[in-house]
Amino acid sequence: MKELKIALLGLGTVGSGVYTSIMDRKGALEELLGHRLKLSSILIKDSSKARPFVKGVPLTSEFEKAIGEEVPDVVIEAIGGIEPARSYIIQSLEAGCHVISANKDLIARHGEELTERAAAKGVRFVYEASVGGGIPILRTLRELLRINRIQHVEAILNGTSNFILSYMRTTGSSFEKALELAQKKGYAEPDPTNDIEGLDAFYKAMVLSKWIYGVQPSWEEVQVEGIGNVLLEEIQLAEQMGLRLKHLVLLNDRLDLQVQPVFVDSDHPLYGVEGVDNAIRIQTDLLGCLTLQGPGAGAEATASAIVEDLLSIYETREIYRNKPAVSELCPKKQEQEVNTYLLVGEKINFTKERISAIEKHGIIIDRTSLRFQPISLAALLYEGPLPLEQEDEFISVISIYPVRLSKSGKGIEKEKVPVAE
Amino acid sequence: MKELKIALLGLGTVGSGVYTSIMDRKGALEELLGHRLKLSSILIKDSSKARPFVKGVPLTSEFEKAIGEEVPDVVIEAIGGIEPARSYIIQSLEAGCHVISANKDLIARHGEELTERAAAKGVRFVYEASVGGGIPILRTLRELLRINRIQHVEAILNGTSNFILSYMRTTGSSFEKALELAQKKGYAEPDPTNDIEGLDAFYKAMVLSKWIYGVQPSWEEVQVEGIGNVLLEEIQLAEQMGLRLKHLVLLNDRLDLQVQPVFVDSDHPLYGVEGVDNAIRIQTDLLGCLTLQGPGAGAEATASAIVEDLLSIYETREIYRNKPAVSELCPKKQEQEVNTYLLVGEKINFTKERISAIEKHGIIIDRTSLRFQPISLAALLYEGPLPLEQEDEFISVISIYPVRLSKSGKGIEKEKVPVAE
Ligand SMILES: NC(=O)c1ccc[n+]([C@@H]2O[C@H](COP(=O)([O-])OP(=O)(O)OC[C@H]3O[C@@H](n4cnc5c(N)ncnc54)[C@H](OP(=O)(O)O)[C@@H]3O)[C@@H](O)[C@H]2O)c1
Ligand SMILES: NC(=O)c1ccc[n+]([C@@H]2O[C@H](COP(=O)([O-])OP(=O)(O)OC[C@H]3O[C@@H](n4cnc5c(N)ncnc54)[C@H](OP(=O)(O)O)[C@@H]3O)[C@@H](O)[C@H]2O)c1
Repeated sequence: MKELKIALLGLGTVGSGVYTSIMDRKGALEELLGHRLKLSSILIKDSSKARPFVKGVPLTSEFEKAIGEEVPDVVIEAIGGIEPARSYIIQSLEAGCHVISANKDLIARHGEELTERAAAKGVRFVYEASVGGGIPILRTLRELLRINRIQHVEAILNGTSNFILSYMRTTGSSFEKALELAQKKGYAEPDPTNDIEGLDAFYKAMVLSKWIYGVQPSWEEVQVEGIGNVLLEEIQLAEQMGLRLKHLVLLNDRLDLQVQPVFVDSDHPLYGVEGVDNAIRIQTDLLGCLTLQGPGAGAEATASAIVEDLLSIYETREIYRNKPAVSELCPKKQEQEVNTYLLVGEKINFTKERISAIEKHGIIIDRTSLRFQPISLAALLYEGPLPLEQEDEFISVISIYPVRLSKSGKGIEKEKVPVAE
Repeated sequence: MKELKIALLGLGTVGSGVYTSIMDRKGALEELLGHRLKLSSILIKDSSKARPFVKGVPLTSEFEKAIGEEVPDVVIEAIGGIEPARSYIIQSLEAGCHVISANKDLIARHGEELTERAAAKGVRFVYEASVGGGIPILRTLRELLRINRIQHVEAILNGTSNFILSYMRTTGSSFEKALELAQKKGYAEPDPTNDIEGLDAFYKAMVLSKWIYGVQPSWEEVQVEGIGNVLLEEIQLAEQMGLRLKHLVLLNDRLDLQVQPVFVDSDHPLYGVEGVDNAIRIQTDLLGCLTLQGPGAGAEATASAIVEDLLSIYETREIYRNKPAVSELCPKKQEQEVNTYLLVGEKINFTKERISAIEKHGIIIDRTSLRFQPISLAALLYEGPLPLEQEDEFISVISIYPVRLSKSGKGIEKEKVPVAE
């Protein structure tokens, strides 16, 4: 039986999760892999930290030692950031190692280069854990939806933002208080900028775009808005209308990408995704809508994606040689400057409460611009009477447009939004 | 380039969907398969029916002709029922054809035999479409969660039942009226017995059990309850408490299986699954909870699962040779005869409305039998004051037990339920 040697770079949240998962499941992994497994070295930064849970695996703070003394078959990168992670991955690939990474920042920026380097050396570079933590988003898209064309995806990809919005809604707390709790609970980093400003979700969206469509939208042109400007009043008004404000990634096969807070209707599968969970709703031409929901971060969940990736390297090699199911791409700039969306499911239910909230808060609805579509990213400002269309006894899809509130000198104001189309 | 010949058995809802999907995507399929594709014959029952959409593929009502004249590489069975489907599949396997089937009744009963016959002939027998329609449940479990031990699953696997329960709740209709609409819309069969009595979900649960754990619980011992006895009052009472009644399959790694209506809390991922959608929540030891939601039936969604299965036969052959990740099995009979469950998420939010509904309807809660567990299938009858446990500013998990109503000579009565543990 051949022995597979694995080097682990980083022993923080993710690295420790990987260490423990591999150690705990060594027998089962060896059976599935058909090889013996050996963690050959672990790279850390600070040699003075005590790591009493590590048993029998050499720790080093020198990359050359981690990879040089006993060239590993697989390198797992769980350091984060661009450098030195990028250089270490390149050196590992050049040395003929497969590489697994959880590093969305790096993959969003340099994924193409790293994938090409891997291909040139005949090794694999995989990174399921970089998008959606434990949820097998990337492999579902590429392995299980091969003939399905991905028309658009809507996703909650930043657990910290989702936690903050959930917490504000359920407890009536301010943004600041919710953020503080997220940090206390370890969901948000000490410097939470990437989460709060939408950058973390943006990087993941860029990884997704490349993965699904083979290209990324222009980095400069994507609108990225975080949750820093979300008002409690806005969340509460939405709730009165049966809507929730969620921080979403919206990406379609025309390479339109938005990363921003969106009102979500109660019939939409992302409506119920609360706390630190992540989720993605995938619209395809054949299957229809598939939604995956699960833990988007955390030591064990992330380790799950990494260890499943490890198995995939040795077990489903062939599948990766196929081209991804690429949609007909017609990248185009967005025509209108609308920056708030309302996501509705297939049916929208106009309860008495909702109607009166709509009326009370002056949402204006236009009977003439009704759009009946299975799922809409519609941002429509309606004028006129409330459109109640009866079909059987449900009411058909109507995209209503909740007014986005904004802070101004005079307190909270309703924002004027241009009418779309 | 080799030519792959495919015979299609059945040209009803599913068969027609498969026909159209393959014809529409022939070029893309051939590219992914690396082979030319040919639909070599279609088996139907009634030769007198007009099928104007079929072009250039011979139709026959004789199985021997469908498979005999030009032995196909793959046979897709979309007839349904036990016989003649079973004999046709056996003959196809014996002739060296791979077989794809959507037939849960048959696979629940004879899946093991058919899989063994396929293995003996070195061909594949696959059936993603038999559980959850278009949702890639089986392949996610076996290919993407290989090292994850599946601890339990909770699933909505019968779209007709889910539609009826959703419709009763949102419109206040009776069961009879909801069923009539489901039939009118083509969700329920003219004879809806299998859907309504829970048998369809039971067959799918049996397929799942075999797939995940390699064994099935004893057919005689499983409690199967459909939605035929669900009362509108019960749905409405649950709604006042922020709960929904859903028809679920509950299966765990001790081979406990229940198929029955269950109260689901608003924080649970199955709560928002409405209409004809199906969904499964998979609890594993490493990833945690993964939920998949999507269309559980329909021509195109089901065809998606079948065509993706076709690709998998030629692309991921190896993966199927591995054993499924089998949990330590300790089949045991259930200890208590409790037949109503309440599913709660990680946090249960005791709003004022919920507390007053609980008090009003006399749900009794016992402070001493609180169970703090990440997800509970708890069926507990509590007595005593309402347990409000503060953790941060959420209230921790508490399993409350809504009283199940039942019809009796004297009208609607609350059912006495034995206290668990
Ligand atoms: N946390 C999550 O839930 C999660 C989920 C999905 C993806 N990710 C991604 O996974 C990666 C790791 O995240 P994390 O949360 O585990 O980070 P972390 O807790 O900060 O751990 C980083 C680890 O890398 C080591 N390290 C940092 N700089 C190094 C250097 N120059 N040389 C050698 N070692 C170095 C650190 O060493 P010391 O221990 O000596 O400080 C530490 O062990 C990131 O790319 C992140 O985006 C994280
Ligand atoms: N419908 C769904 O959404 C769905 C979803 C998942 C799985 N499934 C499963 O898929 C299978 C097919 O379902 P379906 O809804 O497509 O059924 P269907 O609409 O009733 O179609 C059955 C087809 O099989 C043919 N057939 C029936 N008995 C036959 C026989 N003895 N010999 C030859 N052909 C025969 C029929 O021929 P004629 O056209 O001549 O009558 C018809 O074309 C079932 O196992 C079902 O459980 C269905």
